[in-house]
Amino acid sequence: ASPSGSFFGHLLVIPMDGSHWMDLKAVAEEIGRRGHQVTVVIPEVSVRMGPGKHYKTLTYPVPYDKERIDSLLSMHMDVLRQSTQFAPISYFTSVPLQSFLFLSLQHFDAVLTDPMVPTGSLIARKLGLPTVNLLRVIPCGLDTKSAACPAPPSYVPRFFTKFTDKMNFWQRVINTLVSTDSLQPLLCRLFYWHFDHIAYQFLGEEVGVAEVLSESAIWLLRTDSILDFPRPLMPNMVFVGGISCNIRNPLPQDLESWVSGEHGFVVFTLGTAVSVLPEEITAVLLEAFRQIPQKVIWRYTGPVPDDVPENVKMMEWVPQNELLAHHGVRAFITHAGSHGLYEGLCHAVPMVMMPLGGDQPDNAQRMASRGVGVVLDITTITVETLLQGLNDVINNSSYKESVEKLSAFHKDRPFDPLELSVYWTEFVMRHKGATHLRAAAHDLNWVQYHCLDVLALLATVVLLVVMVTMRCMRLCLRKLSRKRKQD
Amino acid sequence: ASPSGSFFGHLLVIPMDGSHWMDLKAVAEEIGRRGHQVTVVIPEVSVRMGPGKHYKTLTYPVPYDKERIDSLLSMHMDVLRQSTQFAPISYFTSVPLQSFLFLSLQHFDAVLTDPMVPTGSLIARKLGLPTVNLLRVIPCGLDTKSAACPAPPSYVPRFFTKFTDKMNFWQRVINTLVSTDSLQPLLCRLFYWHFDHIAYQFLGEEVGVAEVLSESAIWLLRTDSILDFPRPLMPNMVFVGGISCNIRNPLPQDLESWVSGEHGFVVFTLGTAVSVLPEEITAVLLEAFRQIPQKVIWRYTGPVPDDVPENVKMMEWVPQNELLAHHGVRAFITHAGSHGLYEGLCHAVPMVMMPLGGDQPDNAQRMASRGVGVVLDITTITVETLLQGLNDVINNSSYKESVEKLSAFHKDRPFDPLELSVYWTEFVMRHKGATHLRAAAHDLNWVQYHCLDVLALLATVVLLVVMVTMRCMRLCLRKLSRKRKQD
Repeated sequence: ASPSGSFFGHLLVIPMDGSHWMDLKAVAEEIGRRGHQVTVVIPEVSVRMGPGKHYKTLTYPVPYDKERIDSLLSMHMDVLRQSTQFAPISYFTSVPLQSFLFLSLQHFDAVLTDPMVPTGSLIARKLGLPTVNLLRVIPCGLDTKSAACPAPPSYVPRFFTKFTDKMNFWQRVINTLVSTDSLQPLLCRLFYWHFDHIAYQFLGEEVGVAEVLSESAIWLLRTDSILDFPRPLMPNMVFVGGISCNIRNPLPQDLESWVSGEHGFVVFTLGTAVSVLPEEITAVLLEAFRQIPQKVIWRYTGPVPDDVPENVKMMEWVPQNELLAHHGVRAFITHAGSHGLYEGLCHAVPMVMMPLGGDQPDNAQRMASRGVGVVLDITTITVETLLQGLNDVINNSSYKESVEKLSAFHKDRPFDPLELSVYWTEFVMRHKGATHLRAAAHDLNWVQYHCLDVLALLATVVLLVVMVTMRCMRLCLRKLSRKRKQD
Repeated sequence: ASPSGSFFGHLLVIPMDGSHWMDLKAVAEEIGRRGHQVTVVIPEVSVRMGPGKHYKTLTYPVPYDKERIDSLLSMHMDVLRQSTQFAPISYFTSVPLQSFLFLSLQHFDAVLTDPMVPTGSLIARKLGLPTVNLLRVIPCGLDTKSAACPAPPSYVPRFFTKFTDKMNFWQRVINTLVSTDSLQPLLCRLFYWHFDHIAYQFLGEEVGVAEVLSESAIWLLRTDSILDFPRPLMPNMVFVGGISCNIRNPLPQDLESWVSGEHGFVVFTLGTAVSVLPEEITAVLLEAFRQIPQKVIWRYTGPVPDDVPENVKMMEWVPQNELLAHHGVRAFITHAGSHGLYEGLCHAVPMVMMPLGGDQPDNAQRMASRGVGVVLDITTITVETLLQGLNDVINNSSYKESVEKLSAFHKDRPFDPLELSVYWTEFVMRHKGATHLRAAAHDLNWVQYHCLDVLALLATVVLLVVMVTMRCMRLCLRKLSRKRKQD
């Protein structure tokens, strides 16, 4: 049904680092491969961002070096309880946005960006370009707010609460308190106060990040009704969870032969945001792995300890998706980042989830509530709890059955998520926006949207009617009693 | 991405008559063509329903004949102001549902139905089968209610109001009054009280139509963000507006040569629900047509008058979609049924809309607000108003430009609506439902859904805090004043 092919445009991509980069890169590559011009703007120093086959990169200088980033990513016991997810944000904001204005010398048709760091959105507004957002979520709710999407707190759990879509009364109380115009907007203000300031300075108009984001043409959400729960969507919100699942190379021969064996193997990764773990935790994990019959492939970039058991292989990088697709895989130990979860889900691998921060604790609870795995706290982990968790997901068939059922649902969709992302990005390039999908809700203020003015009027009318009726009745009664007295 | 091909199931189709039949038939045919078994249950007597190439039909007797239906459809001046759309409903309900129980002897995987007449939904529940709904809308709002879909009255116009998504204060007052738990539920009760009774009798449980419909697996909506305005959707609601547009045969040779000419031609149809018009109106229409240079093809099943102008051709049946696709078409006079509108939209033909009833007055206003045509009242039409309307849409280029832009939006979608309908129907057959798309909102009652219990608690807490604070302050003040007196 796509009318593409005849139109070739120029896409500006302003990505975010870390795992956020992966799907953006896939979409940029595919759009470039289809013949469009694609320009990706990245900092000179980054964790993962870099050149590709089908797009051009423009780099800009940053006031920090690779070592600083690496040190942020090596995890120590004292920072383990905090999230490191937001570290890159504070870095990115230190880049003067004015340095991007040379982009106005080129012609672009649209901007593709991850609005969690709204740099791309601000530049798009400055250049007068329509925006396509590709993101997992903005946990403070700025995404649903800016998309004017209803999210009833009675069954749409807020992030950081770890609730599911089935809440008891007290959970609904908390969820309502978090979501109504109190805690979530406060959180957003906290996350984005710096950007609100930048927006004002850079754009020269009285506008905040929320308003800039509300101009977005399309929201490509790296989720679906399986990772999140079924909830209302707006017509310009599109689920594209699970892009990376189909991007797969053959497994290297040496790894293929190492993982083969009658007991199968376990894949263990904690995502890009974590490379080195505290020694105490590493020791606990290794001890547990020593006691299981499965082999374990562990992505670990720190120095390898001396006493690594024979069934454990620690590697600086692992082909995660390829390993999870292998028939011998028995379990997946993951930090519950959305990419990992989707790869586990795609290949129907039961999971032991050890969330670290950001959206991960919520992701983990959501998946656990579906029966596809167990959640462990890495800061208090013991050999026993890990062994118990691994034993559960490997030997209790209910986990495997649940994940197989969900996997079938997840993969049974009319359109591949990468193709869908590319389709809507091309759509915005072709039509210079997607105005027909923009809800009139955006033109209403808070009072109008909730019809509070209407309710006030109706309440006043009811009150007046009640008052007039009562006054009339009183008058009648008085007259009646007076008459009786006279009689 | 479709995993079909390996699975072949059996689909039960319980359709609705009139224009509702068209898309249901197209989906039934396509599913049968793909190798599934498809059984369509139709009454012995109907307006349009009948056998197809790729499905089996089962007919059941009805207590009325073809003549009664025909007489309902021939329109006279006195009934023109009322809608005839709901006539078939009252007929359909007179069929005893018990007579369908023989269906339980066969194995089906799912039911495809139009829930405006909820017979199919009741049978599906009785047989324990998942349901796919294919419908334009249930104007009293039962569709959004049963799908647990939010529809803020501030920008989602209700049917029968003729409002657009941009409402002023007073329109919002009316829209709120219509939509809140007052008028719309009352309308639904009026439309469906008979079915609520049938549901109770037939199913032997305390259940109403709303509850039965809320079990639906998928809602295929014959609309999109162009005919309706952008509004929230649930994940199991899918837009499939415009199915018939791509179902096209070559234009018959004699018609092809008749319509050719330098001034082009106008297509005029009023849908299946109307066949004969009052003589007074026919005379007005003919007189107007006599005065335009374009030729006019008019679908008209009544007796052809003597004084038909040379440029007018009255035919019992016209290949509407094929004519609208012709390069010579200049305008489309339509009753603004959704099928006609989508065919006009698909081929970018500006329209003169003369709505008769049902969803048509709202459809017409919505399309007119997009600038693709004008709305006329057929009951008060004059030669002048019709000439003015035709002149506007034919010679004022803004109508053509608007409809071309909307047409481009409408047709630029990742999936053909027929394919999408078939995909989700097959999905429900494959998985015996779509449980992963079912929102937890369905498990909440009205108070819980709106968190009124939570708000009551919070209000109580605030009230208590205020009262305790005031009591404390009063006590303190009293003590203070007493102390002063003692001093």
